[in-house]
Amino acid sequence: MADMKLLLNDLVTANRILANENVLDSFGHVSIRHPEKPDRFIMSRARAPQQCELNDLMEFTLEGKVMGPTPAPGKPYSERFIHGALYEARPEVISVIPFSVVKGSKLRPLMHMAGPIGDDINVWDSAKKFGDTNLLVTSMEMARDMAKTVGKRTVSLLRGHGCVVTALSLREVVFTSIYLEINAGIQMRAMSIGNEVQFLSKGEVDIITKGRSGFTFERGWENWCNRIGRPYYPQAMEMGEGFSQTDPSG
Amino acid sequence: MADMKLLLNDLVTANRILANENVLDSFGHVSIRHPEKPDRFIMSRARAPQQCELNDLMEFTLEGKVMGPTPAPGKPYSERFIHGALYEARPEVISVIPFSVVKGSKLRPLMHMAGPIGDDINVWDSAKKFGDTNLLVTSMEMARDMAKTVGKRTVSLLRGHGCVVTALSLREVVFTSIYLEINAGIQMRAMSIGNEVQFLSKGEVDIITKGRSGFTFERGWENWCNRIGRPYYPQAMEMGEGFSQTDPSG
Amino acid sequence: MADMKLLLNDLVTANRILANENVLDSFGHVSIRHPEKPDRFIMSRARAPQQCELNDLMEFTLEGKVMGPTPAPGKPYSERFIHGALYEARPEVISVIPFSVVKGSKLRPLMHMAGPIGDDINVWDSAKKFGDTNLLVTSMEMARDMAKTVGKRTVSLLRGHGCVVTALSLREVVFTSIYLEINAGIQMRAMSIGNEVQFLSKGEVDIITKGRSGFTFERGWENWCNRIGRPYYPQAMEMGEGFSQTDPSG
Amino acid sequence: MADMKLLLNDLVTANRILANENVLDSFGHVSIRHPEKPDRFIMSRARAPQQCELNDLMEFTLEGKVMGPTPAPGKPYSERFIHGALYEARPEVISVIPFSVVKGSKLRPLMHMAGPIGDDINVWDSAKKFGDTNLLVTSMEMARDMAKTVGKRTVSLLRGHGCVVTALSLREVVFTSIYLEINAGIQMRAMSIGNEVQFLSKGEVDIITKGRSGFTFERGWENWCNRIGRPYYPQAMEMGEGFSQTDPSG
Repeated sequence: MADMKLLLNDLVTANRILANENVLDSFGHVSIRHPEKPDRFIMSRARAPQQCELNDLMEFTLEGKVMGPTPAPGKPYSERFIHGALYEARPEVISVIPFSVVKGSKLRPLMHMAGPIGDDINVWDSAKKFGDTNLLVTSMEMARDMAKTVGKRTVSLLRGHGCVVTALSLREVVFTSIYLEINAGIQMRAMSIGNEVQFLSKGEVDIITKGRSGFTFERGWENWCNRIGRPYYPQAMEMGEGFSQTDPSG
Repeated sequence: MADMKLLLNDLVTANRILANENVLDSFGHVSIRHPEKPDRFIMSRARAPQQCELNDLMEFTLEGKVMGPTPAPGKPYSERFIHGALYEARPEVISVIPFSVVKGSKLRPLMHMAGPIGDDINVWDSAKKFGDTNLLVTSMEMARDMAKTVGKRTVSLLRGHGCVVTALSLREVVFTSIYLEINAGIQMRAMSIGNEVQFLSKGEVDIITKGRSGFTFERGWENWCNRIGRPYYPQAMEMGEGFSQTDPSG
Repeated sequence: MADMKLLLNDLVTANRILANENVLDSFGHVSIRHPEKPDRFIMSRARAPQQCELNDLMEFTLEGKVMGPTPAPGKPYSERFIHGALYEARPEVISVIPFSVVKGSKLRPLMHMAGPIGDDINVWDSAKKFGDTNLLVTSMEMARDMAKTVGKRTVSLLRGHGCVVTALSLREVVFTSIYLEINAGIQMRAMSIGNEVQFLSKGEVDIITKGRSGFTFERGWENWCNRIGRPYYPQAMEMGEGFSQTDPSG
Repeated sequence: MADMKLLLNDLVTANRILANENVLDSFGHVSIRHPEKPDRFIMSRARAPQQCELNDLMEFTLEGKVMGPTPAPGKPYSERFIHGALYEARPEVISVIPFSVVKGSKLRPLMHMAGPIGDDINVWDSAKKFGDTNLLVTSMEMARDMAKTVGKRTVSLLRGHGCVVTALSLREVVFTSIYLEINAGIQMRAMSIGNEVQFLSKGEVDIITKGRSGFTFERGWENWCNRIGRPYYPQAMEMGEGFSQTDPSG
């Protein structure tokens, strides 16, 4: 399969995996930077991720302008600005997911699989600068303010709205999102019994993040594809730093 | 499909969606005001919502009197009075759901999707006026007392019994009920870790409520239909206030 | 279908419903008193309830003696004594379920569907009289001690082991068990956020218990049958006390 | 079916059961000691357990050296050292599972089915001796240090990583892992409502552990096989100590 077709197919699969693994419900969206035109990104029309099909994919400028026709009967996500502003501020970012559900603040990694969410997750509160709104990010002005709060982080929370995850590939963004959810669930349960929770140290987070590689992402991706009956197209796998001859994720 | 047939079909679908999305179990009921006779409403015979079929639908006066035959082998829900009293007190209300499960008091919206549940959810305790009962609403007298407590609210809780949700359309009542459940779950988990929860401000609730529109409801409805294998019949979509050209729900 | 055949079929269905609705896992058992020989009861051979078939059903004396052959390749549940001792002590009891999972003490009804579990659920601790054991009830001596603790209650908990539910029919015992689980879940969540929980009053429990009737049980039973693809055989439905012309369970 | 073929088939089934019963997700691994060569063990190539097939099984020395070809397109689990070090330190151990998810410390059995997890579960923290790492066990040196912490226990936790379960057979290790998860869940919920939890006494744990036998394992194994559509091959069943003529697990 040609690279572009494969990538679009993977984007459809990513939408469905995120719904099936309970990261997104009827709302939320995942995008990829266009592989040949870095000032464009690709995302579904406004539709529940579980229903996403190839025909739903649309191309946007980084300012959120629709390039080409909008697939009937829909419209673009009004929150396409979130994606554009992050691709604009972070040239290295290839994929973005804003979640639809908030899980709480002070989220920190406590298990090795979730290390790469980072140990300084912060919260963007739209009310600080924009006062009472419907909590959506409906303009580039809001989106750029949010992108400034995200900075170089992998994950930031949006108050009353959800969170945003950035990554260097589509598989990585899906992987990080799923383990962010799992980590949040474990952290909540740990805190609900009054324990002082032992989080990963900054050193551990750094080593895990550097060591995570394609091989690990493939293992999850193959499994998540099979769980929803989507075809699995393997990618070339590389090992992460510091893992000679062995698979970094046990 | 003719409008009336479409509406009845949607009511069957609503019953099944509410069961599949874990809002109702074997009990609970959803009704719509009759589109041509505003002093009538339509609701299933007493049957688990997951099993509801077209033949189960019955017509009632606002006082809960059965108009026409009762489908074998059943009886009407004894709690049809809840529905009648709300249609009587609130001419604008088109659809009503009383839930079967209580989730706790002091429920307040903390995420944007649930904003329209309102920021002053109150509790009707049948014991206050009627003493020890089986906690069901089995007469118009009880139902009217309950409707008075509900007032102009979208949501009220019924102590030891569940809650009641009112809306301007069938899709809206289903949408609100599902996000009410999700909001309650997040609020519980947030409170269980001892955090002071930051709820939406009154201004945010107002803006979100005004901005929510048919387009948002359709996105959820299509998804919930597909998840249970029911046909999806799209409705004309309008945008909400304050959302020029964009979809209000990100 | 002849009555006896219907009853045995329903007992198989009850086993599977209890597994599907997450009341039992691979362990736990449900029995019925023999409809023609009140000094006998009927229960599956020792097998996971989800796998129970007609051929697995066995007949026992109230002392747990096997009457007739044991279906290959199994053995009876060693805990058949629990069932025998309860039928022996409570002539009115027709059906018994001991659960496999403990949920905590001080369990009390807080929602109307669960009212009949009663407002004085107590705990039988095998260690009090029998010291360190494997916590199973492996003799009539232990079982009779347990039955004495149960007394006239509908539900008692067994420390570190589970609970026992008694009822006047198979459908009632299944119904009570499912809502016992739901009530326990709601109570736990309510307590985890530090609220003082408002339980049902004794008067409310009494009224609900008297009013619960065949009609209500049928509604749940039909739904639970359909959810596992088992045929549903309706029973003659009667209304409960105090519910003229209407269905007591909303 | 010949013994060896049966055992390999069971190992594939064990991988899938552990995924289906939510013990493992896309990560984690289960192994068995080679029945004819006690200095070897058998485990899948690095692949999500839910996807494991017969062709994925590999043979290793106790030092984690691959014997024979690695099935395409994979690699061995880098954490094969955990398995080797435990087989090396504990000649009686036949099967090992390290989990991927941590549930908290001070885990203790409170229900009879989980008694055999033992009443002195401890925690191995890799940072104590090895400082900041990616929290994986990537060498025999680390694995032997971990095996020393495990000692003669059935279960130990690995901080930020998961836990390790040892057993005398494949069915036992699966059984213990599933009830370890269930026990952890109940314990968490019990602790979240502020109750002082009554755990099993040491005497009870000992009696339950001695009494648990093949008959009990078969009951769970048959059920878990059927739930994922895998064939069930019964094993010869023996009763545990202290259970004359009756099934030890109620």
